[in-house]
This record gives sequence, structure tokens and C-alpha cells, in this order.
Amino acid sequence: MSLGVGVSPGNVAVHHGVGSLKSMDRKVKVAEVALRCLILVLGVLVASLVATDTQVKKIFSIEKKAKFTEMKALVFLVIANGIAAGYSLIQAIRCVVSAVKGSVLFSKPLAWVIFSFDQVLAYVCLAAVAAAAQSAVLGEFGQTELEWMSICNMYGKFCNQVGEGIVVALVVSISMVSISCLSAFNLFRLYGKNKGTAGDI
Amino acid sequence: MSLGVGVSPGNVAVHHGVGSLKSMDRKVKVAEVALRCLILVLGVLVASLVATDTQVKKIFSIEKKAKFTEMKALVFLVIANGIAAGYSLIQAIRCVVSAVKGSVLFSKPLAWVIFSFDQVLAYVCLAAVAAAAQSAVLGEFGQTELEWMSICNMYGKFCNQVGEGIVVALVVSISMVSISCLSAFNLFRLYGKNKGTAGDI
Repeated sequence: MSLGVGVSPGNVAVHHGVGSLKSMDRKVKVAEVALRCLILVLGVLVASLVATDTQVKKIFSIEKKAKFTEMKALVFLVIANGIAAGYSLIQAIRCVVSAVKGSVLFSKPLAWVIFSFDQVLAYVCLAAVAAAAQSAVLGEFGQTELEWMSICNMYGKFCNQVGEGIVVALVVSISMVSISCLSAFNLFRLYGKNKGTAGDI
Repeated sequence: MSLGVGVSPGNVAVHHGVGSLKSMDRKVKVAEVALRCLILVLGVLVASLVATDTQVKKIFSIEKKAKFTEMKALVFLVIANGIAAGYSLIQAIRCVVSAVKGSVLFSKPLAWVIFSFDQVLAYVCLAAVAAAAQSAVLGEFGQTELEWMSICNMYGKFCNQVGEGIVVALVVSISMVSISCLSAFNLFRLYGKNKGTAGDI
């Protein structure tokens, strides 16, 4: 009888699930690092694809140069993906450091900060892709009702490279959304784990 | 000594905080209903502002009519805000019904479904605003490098009304983001409350 004192059903359940929890913890951490590295690589790819994209056309004796700064949406895309890449580098380092140190649990305020940043960046990346895609559609097809002519007939190579950049940026955005779901999961788990302290609710 | 058997610190804490929890519950519910109603009203306002916006100009003997269907981004904006309004109506009804029934706690799967829908709609609304804003900037200022002329010199009234629609749509998006944070909170609380069951983690 005395063995039962102080052992609540909650404690039993926690001990019961420690093995599967650790394995899930590891999977989540691996997925997080993989996604962060993917965003880092693809974010840099988008920024360099779009920012280095130029094409010169000679119309009679006048040289015309197409570059990404002519479309504000493309500048926004480059900046957003650059920030996402830099942020993901910092986060990937944090993940690796915490894995090396073996500290799986982090503080709630830190989890909240990471969750918030992930959410904001996911929204910013998606907004940048939406604006750039809208510009790209106008560039590709023009808008004959408004007498805006397609520019991709003239600057085919430029448009193709921007198109590739936007497709990769879409992958970055989807990865950012996945990361923000993962960091929400991390937050949920912290709230689920810390049983028995009044500050949790 | 025997009084202490089976009473874990967790249980004590839960009983301690029931009063403040109920008051917080009420505040969250009120905030949720208010935000849902705001999105409902403003979503309808955006859709009607943009969809009913037309302007006819006579250039010599040719009549030209500006309407929102000429810009795909505006069509996307109308559809996204229409869906957000319809969804918010359903959710507001659910909130009111659960308040009348007095059932504060809902099931985890339902909380997950609401959280997911809220997230998706927040992303969709924000993407629609970003694309429409990009179109609006092009319409207002043109893009002289690409020989796309401003159309707002000609269709001033049309552009103003679209501009108003986009500003209101931005408020809808921010409200949707707030709602998705609120439904995340609702999910967190479910995970924080159900202490002591193995299925929580």
C-alpha cells in the first residue's frame, strides 16, 4: 500500500511512454533540422536566381536591360527569401547545438519566440510568392484590357529564370509553413508534458 | 498521512485555478465570436466593394468599362474574402451554440480541424491581399520600364474603390491571423488541461 503513495496515474503514464517519446522527439528534431537546411539552401538559391537575373536586348541602337529591381515584387521576394535563409541558418545551428548538448526540452518563452518567428516568416514568404506570382503572370500574359503587353516575348531567358525562382520560392514557403506547424507541435508538447505545475494553464 | 494518498500537486493546482480558468475561457470565447463576426461583416464588405466596382470611360466614340474581372488577383480577393465570410458565419454559429449549450470543452479532433481551417484561410487571405496589392500598385503607378501605363489616371473612381477593398481585406487577413492564434491557444489549453492521461503527449 505504501508503494502507491505519491504515484499518480499521470506519473505512471509519463514513465510508460518515455521510450516512444524519445524516439518521436528525435524524429521531430531530425525533420526540423532537415527542413531548416532545405529552406537555407533553397532560400539562397531563390535570392541568387532572381537577383542575378538580367537580360539585355538591343532595339535598333538602344540597349534595354531587364533586371529584377524593375519589379518591386521581385525585390520583396529576394529580401524575404534572404531573411528566411539567414533565419534558418541560425535555427539549424540552434537545433544542432541542442542535439549535441542533449537538451531536448527548451523553455516555454523560447518555444513561443521560435513559434512566433516561424509563423511571421511563413506569412511573409507566402505573401512574397503571391505578389511575385501575380507579377509573373502579368509579365507572361500581359493584360490586353489595360494595354499592358507581355514582356516575356522580348525577355524570354529573364522570365524563365524568374519563373524558376518563384517555383523554388513556393517550395520555401511550403517548408516554412511545415516548420511553423512543427514548432506549434513543439509548443503543444511542452504544454502536454509539464503536468502538475500551476503555471501551465 | 493517509489524506495525502493519491493527491498529486497537479490535481491541487487544477482545483486552485478553476475560477480564473472559467473567466479566461469566457474572454477567449467572446474574443473569438467578436473576431468571427468582424471577419463575416468585413469579408462581405470586401467582396461587394470589389465585385460591384465598375467605371465606364468614353474615349472618342469607344466605350471602355473597367471591372474587377480584368485583374485575376481581384477575382482571387473576392473569392477568398467570400469564403472567409461564409466560414466565419458557420464558426460564429458554432461558438454561439456551444455557449448556449454551456459546453466549453470541445474534442481534440474538432480543435485540430478548426485550427487547420483557420490556418489555411489565414494563409489564403494574406496571399490574396498580397497579390491584389501588387496589382493595385501596378495599376496606380504603372511600370514605365515595361511600358505599362498607370490606369488610375483614367479610372480614378474604380481604383479608389479597389483600394478601399484592399485596405479592408488587410484588416480581414489580420483578423484571420489573430483567429488562427486564438484557435492555437484553444488547442494548447486542451493539451495543458488534460493532465494525467497517457494519450495527451
